[in-house]
Order: sequence, then C-alpha cells, then structure tokens
Amino acid sequence: MNAPNIVAAADFNAALEAMAEVVGREWVIRDSDAGLDSYRDAYSTREVAATGPAAAVAPLDVKQIQGVLAVARQYRIPLWPVSTGRNFGYGGAAPRQPGALTLDLKRMNRIIEVNERHAYAVVEPGVSYFDLYRYIQERGLKLWLDPAAPGWGGVLGNLADRGAGYTPYGEHFMAQCGMQVVLADGTVVDTALGSVPGARAQHLYRYGQGPWVDGLFTQSNLGIITQIGIWLMPEPPGYRPYMVTFPEEDDIHAITEAIRPLKLNMLIPNAATTVGLIWEAAVKVTRADYHEGPGPMPDSARRRMAADLKIGNWNFYAAQYGPERVMDNDWKVIQEHLGAVPGARFYTADERQHDPAFEYRAKLMRGIPNMTEYSLLNWVGAGAHIDFSPISPVTGEGALAQFHIMRDLCHAHGFDYIGEFLVGWRDMHHILMLVFDRTDPDNKRAVRALFDALIDEATRAGYGEYRTHLDYMVAIAGTYDWGHGALARTTGALKNALDPDGILAPGKSGIWPGSAAS
Amino acid sequence: MNAPNIVAAADFNAALEAMAEVVGREWVIRDSDAGLDSYRDAYSTREVAATGPAAAVAPLDVKQIQGVLAVARQYRIPLWPVSTGRNFGYGGAAPRQPGALTLDLKRMNRIIEVNERHAYAVVEPGVSYFDLYRYIQERGLKLWLDPAAPGWGGVLGNLADRGAGYTPYGEHFMAQCGMQVVLADGTVVDTALGSVPGARAQHLYRYGQGPWVDGLFTQSNLGIITQIGIWLMPEPPGYRPYMVTFPEEDDIHAITEAIRPLKLNMLIPNAATTVGLIWEAAVKVTRADYHEGPGPMPDSARRRMAADLKIGNWNFYAAQYGPERVMDNDWKVIQEHLGAVPGARFYTADERQHDPAFEYRAKLMRGIPNMTEYSLLNWVGAGAHIDFSPISPVTGEGALAQFHIMRDLCHAHGFDYIGEFLVGWRDMHHILMLVFDRTDPDNKRAVRALFDALIDEATRAGYGEYRTHLDYMVAIAGTYDWGHGALARTTGALKNALDPDGILAPGKSGIWPGSAAS
Repeated sequence: MNAPNIVAAADFNAALEAMAEVVGREWVIRDSDAGLDSYRDAYSTREVAATGPAAAVAPLDVKQIQGVLAVARQYRIPLWPVSTGRNFGYGGAAPRQPGALTLDLKRMNRIIEVNERHAYAVVEPGVSYFDLYRYIQERGLKLWLDPAAPGWGGVLGNLADRGAGYTPYGEHFMAQCGMQVVLADGTVVDTALGSVPGARAQHLYRYGQGPWVDGLFTQSNLGIITQIGIWLMPEPPGYRPYMVTFPEEDDIHAITEAIRPLKLNMLIPNAATTVGLIWEAAVKVTRADYHEGPGPMPDSARRRMAADLKIGNWNFYAAQYGPERVMDNDWKVIQEHLGAVPGARFYTADERQHDPAFEYRAKLMRGIPNMTEYSLLNWVGAGAHIDFSPISPVTGEGALAQFHIMRDLCHAHGFDYIGEFLVGWRDMHHILMLVFDRTDPDNKRAVRALFDALIDEATRAGYGEYRTHLDYMVAIAGTYDWGHGALARTTGALKNALDPDGILAPGKSGIWPGSAAS
Repeated sequence: MNAPNIVAAADFNAALEAMAEVVGREWVIRDSDAGLDSYRDAYSTREVAATGPAAAVAPLDVKQIQGVLAVARQYRIPLWPVSTGRNFGYGGAAPRQPGALTLDLKRMNRIIEVNERHAYAVVEPGVSYFDLYRYIQERGLKLWLDPAAPGWGGVLGNLADRGAGYTPYGEHFMAQCGMQVVLADGTVVDTALGSVPGARAQHLYRYGQGPWVDGLFTQSNLGIITQIGIWLMPEPPGYRPYMVTFPEEDDIHAITEAIRPLKLNMLIPNAATTVGLIWEAAVKVTRADYHEGPGPMPDSARRRMAADLKIGNWNFYAAQYGPERVMDNDWKVIQEHLGAVPGARFYTADERQHDPAFEYRAKLMRGIPNMTEYSLLNWVGAGAHIDFSPISPVTGEGALAQFHIMRDLCHAHGFDYIGEFLVGWRDMHHILMLVFDRTDPDNKRAVRALFDALIDEATRAGYGEYRTHLDYMVAIAGTYDWGHGALARTTGALKNALDPDGILAPGKSGIWPGSAAS
C-alpha cells in the first residue's frame, strides 16, 4: 500500500518544502505545530492514538492545488482533502490513514455567485452555512438555504458527502448543479454544461451530453471538488413549522405509516424528522438530571422526563410552505392523518414558545443555520458522538424493525438509544447518535463493540448505511458486496483510471488504490 | 479503431454462429433477413446509405447478454445496445458506426415490480410506456407514469438517454432509483443500495456508500443497463390541464419571464411546454393546407392558420394537480402572472373539447401514453424529423435569443421553425423539430447544412445541447471542450477502464474506445 509511513522521512520533508514553495510557508502545518491537532478526530472511539495526519497543507486556489498534487505524485504521498472538516460524527477532518497529508481547503472560501433570479449559489469548499447565510442576508436576497444541523458545516463538503438538511431542499445532492473537480493528475474538469465555453446554463441544468460524472465525486476519492453549484429555495409566501408528539415507543409504526402518503403527495414537502425522546430532550436537560449510574436510562426515568418536557417518545417536526390558504387546506389533511395515531398531540410555534428544541428545528426547516443541536452532546460529561445511519423504508414495519434492532443493541451494550428518522422522497435516514464520554476508555471500547454489532445486525436485516465514520468505511463498503463485490470492483477500476498513483484519500468510502500494490 | 469492417468476414460469421448458440438461431438477425431493416435510421438525413448494423442479436436475459459479450470480446466485434430503439428523432435503433452488431434488448421486456405503496416501478429495457401503463391500469393501481410524447418509447431507454416527459415527474433521470448494469467484461453490477444483499430500500433511496455511479451509464457506452427503478407519481386528488395562447412571436420573452417564478415556486409543478405555432398546428393541419411551394411558410399564412385554429404563435400547456381548493388558490396566481402578457388567452379542457392537440397534451400531462404527436410528421409529405435540442435558461432574453437564432437559421435554409420549450426545474429544453421529406435528397442536404449551422451558432452563444442524433454526437461532444477537452479526456479514461476492448457502442455520445487505437 502506498502508505505515507513508507515514504522516507527525508522525502517527506523535501515534499513539504516543495509544497511550501507552492502555498507559502505559513500554510504548511507540520507535526511540531499546535495547529495540527485540529486535524485529528476529536471524537475518536479509539483508546490509543487518534487518527491524525503527518502534516497539513492549505492551498488558496486551483493552481496551488495543482502544484501540491504535482509534489504529491512525485513523492507518492497520499493527500486527504477536507473542506471545512466539521462532520465530527463521521471523523471530522481526520484522514482514514494515519500519517497522510491533509489537504485543507478552508482558504478556498469564496462565494462565487448567488443568483436570486434562478435561485442558486456557487461556492468553494471553505464556505460554511453561516457564511452563505450571512451573504444572503446582507444583500436581502429572497433565498433560503438548507443547512445541516450544525451551521458551521460546509455547504460543499456536506453535499459531497451526500448529507441532508430539513427544508424541501433537504436532499442536498439532488439540488446540486454544476461542479468543478481537480483530478489527481491536475486536470481541471468543469462537468456537464460547464464544459461548454461561455456556458449560460451550467447551474440551471445538471447534465450535458454524454455520461454524467458528477455523482462519481460524491463520497469519493476520485477527485477534489473545488466548486459546486447548489439550488436554493425561493422564499415562500408563508411558513408554518409544527410538531406532533406521540407517547409510546412503538408508535413509530403508526407514525411512519401516516407519514408515507403525506410525504409521497408532498403534503409534507420538507425533509421532516421523527425525533426520539432523548434526542429531543438532550438539548434541554442532561442525563444526570434524570438518572445516575451506568446502563441505559430506565423507562421510568424516560417517562418522567417526557412528562416534564411535554414531549413524546417520538416527536415529529415538519413545516408548511406556501400561501396561507393552501397551508390551511393541507393542514386539515395533515391533522387527519397524523392525528389518527392514538395520543398524538399537535403544537404550533405559538404553543412551543421558549422551547429551544422547537426553536432550532423551526430555524433549520426555514434554512437558518444554528448550533443548538450541538448542545445535546452535554447529555453525558465530555460528550462525543459517532453516528450510525442506515436507510429505512418509509414503512411502519421497517421503521419499527430498525428501531428495535438499534434500541435493543444500544441497551444491551449499556447505551441510550438517541435516534431520529429523517424522511426523504421515498426513504428515511435513520440516524443513531451514539453519545459517549471521550475521556472514558471503557465507554469507547463499548461504543466500538456496539458499532460492530449494529453493522452486522442491520446488514443481516437488509439495511445499508448511507454514510459512515472513517473507521467503519471499509466495513460498510464490505456490506455492499452483492455479486462478489461487483460494485467495489467497478469503483476500484474507476479509481485506478483516474488516480493511478493512488494519492487521493486512500481508504475513503473503503476504496484503496489498487495500482500501489504493484 | 476497432471497427467491424476490419473484422474478417469469416470471423464475423463464426461470431454470429457462436452467438446463435447463446440466444437461439432465430434471435440472430442477419444481413439476409428483412428484419434487419428495422435497425436502420428510418429518418436518416444522409443521401446515400442509411446507417445500419451488419447484424442484430436479441438476448433474453442477463446470462445471454454475458454470453454474447464473451463472443464479442473474443472477436472484438462492437455491440450497439438498444432498448426499444424508438427515439427516431435521434437515430432510432441504428448504430453510430455502420456495420456494428446491434444488441437488441426488446425480448427483455419484463415488468419486474410495480410498487403502489412506495410509488415506483422496476423494468427491463424492452418495456414501453404503453406496456407499463396497461400493467398499471389492469391492476387498478393509483399510480401515474410519465411518458415521452410517443407512447411506444421505452421507459428504460428514454431514462438512460435522459429524456423528458410532461408531468411533475418529467425529469426522468431525477426519478431514477436503482439500476442493474452489465459491464463489457460481463460483470453484473447492482448499484447503490442494490449491492446490499437482501436490500430492502434499493428503489427508495438512490445512493449507497461511496461514489454514485448510476449517472455514468446514462447517454453512455460504459455498460448495458438491464434493469432500472423509476419513481412514479401517486394519483393526485385532482387534475386540471390548461392552455394559454399568446399572439406574437416575440411574446416568448414575456411568457418565459412569467413562467420562471411560477415554476421556481412550483405553482407550475409539471414539465410544462411553450409550443410554437407550427408544432401546435401540425397535429391538426398540413402545411399544404396553408402554403404551397418551397421556403418557410410566410407570415400571412401563419397568421391565417393561427386564426383558423384559435391558437397563438406560442401556446403554453401546463396542469394543476391537487385538492380542488389548492388548485383554486393557485389558479388565481397563475392567471395573474401569465395573464399579464398582452393578448394572453386562457383555455380549460372544457373550452378545447375535440381539439386533438389539447387532448393529447392533457393526456401526456396526466401520464397517459399516446401517439398523437407523431402525426405532426404529416406536416410535409413523407415526413421525417431530426431534433436539435439546446438547453435554455428560463429567462426572456435567453429564450428570445435562442428562438431568433434558430428561427432565422431555419428560414435562411428554407425550413419552418417547429419548436417548443419544455420547462424543467431551472432550465428549458428547447426542442427544434426539423421536419423534412425523406424522399428528397436536396431537402436532406439542406437539413444537414442547417444542423451544422445550428450547432455553430448555438455554441458561439454559449448554449449546449442536452441530447443529439447519432450523426452529431461527435460534433456536439466537441462543443463540450472547456479546458482542452478535460471532460472528454475524463470520460475517455473511464471508458478505457470499464471497456478496455472497446466493444460497447463505439462513438456513442462521441466517446470512442481509446485502447483499440494501440
């Protein structure tokens, strides 16, 4: 394998020197620099050394990326590109392979264009949701963005990882239109209509003529995305967030059955969430307020907490967008369907004033980035998290089966189930947030055992994960193994074609360079 | 180049014999068989020999495809896969390269699944819109499909060519979910979640973990798609098609400006069309009814025809879908916007009874396949057509500029402008149907001269085509040449990686096998 630890120290230093010539000395962060710590996995579940790069280099533009790539190819040093690197539940800015060289794209933080007429933006990798939101607000543009839960996340990086948000534009990759990619050999590719010189529609139509390659560069190590176009939502004439609480755990069956037709018929137009009790509670209270000691929180404590906070075992958040009259009409249908679940209780914004959970959800669903959800890490002391995220069908039996598998495994391993279902066009992302104490080695060991069990059980039941933490990319890729790994062999062949030296993000999504073995 | 004409006749015959062993003798169609004519380009603009294959072979299933591929690799015979091959405006079932071997997938016509609960279908290449519609009707399923204008077209083939329809699901590739592909080496790949054995959500969520490859196989020669999942529209509670006529040619500016906000805000939820006068008229009358002789129809004749048929120089077709009350509310906004264009006149279905144009448009927008549009080829005697299809921004100036370029070039070359704009989420497909007399060599020569001029002028103005006829794939690919052809070099590298022998559809989308040159 083309591992950096087989690059001789003298070569590695020579490479860093050469890269310093390209990007400027201050933008090469070495082992000796305190700054290098920010490229470690702050929430690593490993007891010993957290994964970290041997150094980091931060280019300013495409030309500098090309210069860095040339050096990397010469010395065969693997680069691990990161945009803002804030996806902490999946490994943050850390490389898959210890000792790689992080290619930090944070300096490339230009907002290339925000087009109000056609409702789209074009951004570089370093642009956060906060940055883009501020830009739009300062200019008074009637556009909404679709932030991930933590607003410091990167617009481009989240989309490239096929992340999700909470507005009607919650499926980020589906809103992507236009991409600039730098390949390992330094070739700059403007995809689709962007390849027509002077193109007038490159951010209006996703494709061009011939194979559409953009999807190849998502969750990928086949190229470095340096610009992305993303469609934004025009400000609607009205907005009404709402919440519905449901008392019992197994209500997830009836809730999901009620959601499916509403979602398919777009009466729920946004990426709505069915939030489990503890996820909902944890932005307001801590575990210690209701339970001390190890093991999962007992049912009695959970019920007490639910009653205190006036929340349910499940809490459904969605919103209406449109003219008042249309929302009035739809509201009746929504109430009829979701209200048919026994114990359902509806809340509007007026009825949840000063509730920080409702408040931040209402912000997310109208595209206002914030950091509130982050506070749920306070659920335990020194909280960190790693997420397990299988795709569920939008069916009662599917959701219930996944919930039971994941809750039971969590409990068996001594953890609380902290989960939510995020409903897309035909699926649900079931997000299990495993919150643990990052100062406690036993707790971390238990997380790892639990994670392995989750992958096994979910796979056995026919559920695949949509995204995963660095440490589990190989394992999750291994679950996509139909036809003797036909898909992996295909992506492997593409990897060898576009990056024959194997220098881009080895191990990302479980794809290792093949040529390096020879 | 790995051309079939350099395969020795004896080898070619030996290969056909070997393929007959695989698929059965009756499914190898040879030069001597009359059936081979159906694989020619019936609407070829060439004066001499129309492009045709040397033979055709029709496998029944994936196993037979693998058998045929093995023979093709052994003898290095290029295969040209076709599904139903009915895209006559773009070359039909003919191969790009004369003498190739057509791989006809019409026998693979199974409807694998239609799922009403989740609103999707899974089909093989040979399934037409008529087939799928009949299947749904027979079972009384509350699902609508989204047919291309001619209902005999293939669901899979149209999607694979990134075709479009007229309902809210009009962008076919965006509704794709799940794909099975056979690569040149015979590897069968189930993409995305389909690669998780026993997958429960492969037609509910488009992606998996790792690079999303599905787009690679659209407008492509990188693999043979053998199954595709496609989302269908749940039957809405109400449906109201409507038409708005506009008197003047340059109204396209004001019309398009009115459409943009309605489309962005989904008050026009479907893929709506702004249809030019002659396209609209030609399903009802012929050119000879209003004008004899060569050259474009004069303005006076066009005006007489418009008056007789009660249509405009532009005719906008769209529909509302939903509960009556919501449609009532939206209708006011729609009327306000489109009605602001001077001379706009609204028609509902009641007001256009017995109008075959309104009737077939109303069917298309509610997902009922039909063949009515085909009759517009009667505009001239022995009518054939070839389509030129640039992408336009949804702006008045963009639409007007494209219309002027295309109309003026049509007129200068002696043709009528027969065009329509199909509005997608952020773009318009501007479809120019060049109707010509396929028995007239001069007329065909003129079409070719016009087509070359259209490519040149559109490219100079910054407009790229979304799809093209076989004969122009190389030329159109050449217009996507930013960065010294970076995109073409990338797809070329992928081609070599997945099809090193260069046997799949050489020249498709302008991509030729590279390895064969060595």
